[in-house]
Amino acid sequence: MRLAVIPGDGIGPEVIAEALKVLGEVVPAAEITRYDLGAARWHATGELLPESVLGELRQHDAILLGAVGDPSVPSGILERGLLLRLRFELDHHVNLRPARLYPGVRSPLADPPEIDMVVVREGTEGPYAGNGGLLRKDTPHEIATEVSLNTSFGVERVVRDAFARASARPRRHLTLVHKTNVLTHAGSLWSRVVEEVSLQHPDVTVAYQHVDAATIHLVTDPGRYDVIVTDNLFGDILTDLAAAVTGGIGLAASGNLDVTRRNPSMFEPVHGSAPDIAGQGIADPTAAVLSVALLLDHLGEHEASRRIEASVAFDLATRDHQSPGATYAIGDRLAALVSSNVRTG
Amino acid sequence: MRLAVIPGDGIGPEVIAEALKVLGEVVPAAEITRYDLGAARWHATGELLPESVLGELRQHDAILLGAVGDPSVPSGILERGLLLRLRFELDHHVNLRPARLYPGVRSPLADPPEIDMVVVREGTEGPYAGNGGLLRKDTPHEIATEVSLNTSFGVERVVRDAFARASARPRRHLTLVHKTNVLTHAGSLWSRVVEEVSLQHPDVTVAYQHVDAATIHLVTDPGRYDVIVTDNLFGDILTDLAAAVTGGIGLAASGNLDVTRRNPSMFEPVHGSAPDIAGQGIADPTAAVLSVALLLDHLGEHEASRRIEASVAFDLATRDHQSPGATYAIGDRLAALVSSNVRTG
Ligand SMILES: CC(C)[C@H](C(=O)O)[C@@H](O)C(=O)O
Ligand SMILES: CC(C)[C@H](C(=O)O)[C@@H](O)C(=O)O
Repeated sequence: MRLAVIPGDGIGPEVIAEALKVLGEVVPAAEITRYDLGAARWHATGELLPESVLGELRQHDAILLGAVGDPSVPSGILERGLLLRLRFELDHHVNLRPARLYPGVRSPLADPPEIDMVVVREGTEGPYAGNGGLLRKDTPHEIATEVSLNTSFGVERVVRDAFARASARPRRHLTLVHKTNVLTHAGSLWSRVVEEVSLQHPDVTVAYQHVDAATIHLVTDPGRYDVIVTDNLFGDILTDLAAAVTGGIGLAASGNLDVTRRNPSMFEPVHGSAPDIAGQGIADPTAAVLSVALLLDHLGEHEASRRIEASVAFDLATRDHQSPGATYAIGDRLAALVSSNVRTG
Repeated sequence: MRLAVIPGDGIGPEVIAEALKVLGEVVPAAEITRYDLGAARWHATGELLPESVLGELRQHDAILLGAVGDPSVPSGILERGLLLRLRFELDHHVNLRPARLYPGVRSPLADPPEIDMVVVREGTEGPYAGNGGLLRKDTPHEIATEVSLNTSFGVERVVRDAFARASARPRRHLTLVHKTNVLTHAGSLWSRVVEEVSLQHPDVTVAYQHVDAATIHLVTDPGRYDVIVTDNLFGDILTDLAAAVTGGIGLAASGNLDVTRRNPSMFEPVHGSAPDIAGQGIADPTAAVLSVALLLDHLGEHEASRRIEASVAFDLATRDHQSPGATYAIGDRLAALVSSNVRTG
């Protein structure tokens, strides 16, 4: 197993260290190459993602990324030039984001139901296409545009993936989230594709919700969701909210998948580089560890993946959530649990 | 006071009846003209918003709208052809949406702080511009686009309004919500305008948040917000979420303002036509009643507006939230409170 690791900025390297610690327990032979992409490299050399590095990354089975972003770098540079560029160049069309309320974890909701959903967020088009511009900048007549690009090809492959996932889950329920009543063109495409693909999945029940209504239900009735399929921007918003109601982005993992496997998929915590707490050794590495579980699952190491997830579940059920411990201590605990091959019910 | 009233579809007419009952207590001389725009008219005549009706609407001091939308009408027809057309034709650039957690109201949050914020949502451009299209429809090569249009003119007038509102509030705090790290062009315009206008408001503290992070904070720390200024789509999403955390869209009022007063402003509950509960007489008219309060405030009837809001606050503090009563009963209660000139602390 050849893994590329991009620790990145802020708490990225801190949580990645623990994620690798845990990985080492299940796949000691994993071959790891680190890439120092991120704010420091950009400051030092002006480079974001050199072609040569991109070429090397392609030679790996998967990529593990910590977080990128730093207040010293103008907004958008690292996001568009590095993180999104990776997702686009490596055709990470399925951005997979499970949200599960683990036993023992405190939700900000007063009366949380069982929550176990997965958001299939489109990852390579929509408003993220980078297709926009400024006209008459810095004049009173300035116009800024952002173009959401949605293709039949791009929507269909993600919708197919979402249906396949829904089909394999006990509840077999899929919700399309969009804003079809306002974004009528993109909405029409998404709706038609969902309708068409649903014909091949009579076993999956299908629902539709506008994105604004979905944010309401995520706080009043999140138990209704099983698989959500949605566009890049709505997926960005919904998965942060879903993470919040299931205990915070400190626990939320994600996979950026090229489901054709032509390119390595990339796994990363949903949280960012959190510069406010970086360097203090207090970041929760759980999301990074769960991202390793997603990575292993994607690479067919299902048993190793389950061991990690079970260890996290056990730790979350038993940890003192007021003081869960330092970053390294959580990593140590999870590594120990994984190596002791813990099972939870 | 000449008011145009569009009861609309579903629960729209039900809640509007109660809103007018309450209005009658404070401005008995209000002259009211009803317009039967909505699903029924569209089915009967194919008309959404005839020019002649639009011309008549313009002759009023303000418009009160219930809700539009019905499952029998394809998604987007009434929204784009009627509701959004009104907002755009009447240049409702400031979509004002207060979110307050009233004493006595149960939030879905476990430990809600004091919440008293107002979202200033841009109302006439952004992704709502209706600027997009379909290419190669129903082929495997279909492309759907949606263009977000943002102008210096359009952003500045909304940002100015938001700063003025922040300046007049005790906390004097303004948060720009956008996604500047991905939507870099529109984000750059919004950021620059906020920065420029802030120079004229040294009394207002300014913060920025990405829209995804804002949804997290709306459920983990909503007390931090005072005034939020944001674009049309983000405002749509955030205000539904803000309504949810402050007790639900049954309580959320909104004003679509042309702050230049060249066109009548329009006031409407944030909730939709709720076809699932229409005709049962169980819809909560409180949001419609609070929309009347916003309407009166906009027309300079500050004392009448305050009386209505105080009556709502009193009713919410004392009502049995498990069984708040039928639509008409809530309306009766509020009308009685308003006429008895109730004051709350
Ligand atoms: C950092 C940013 C570009 C990114 C996104 O918007 O996709 C992040 O919010 C995420 O969700 O992974
Ligand atoms: C009905 C719909 C067009 C509308 C919007 O998106 O603005 C509604 O959600 C709202 O918030 O008033």
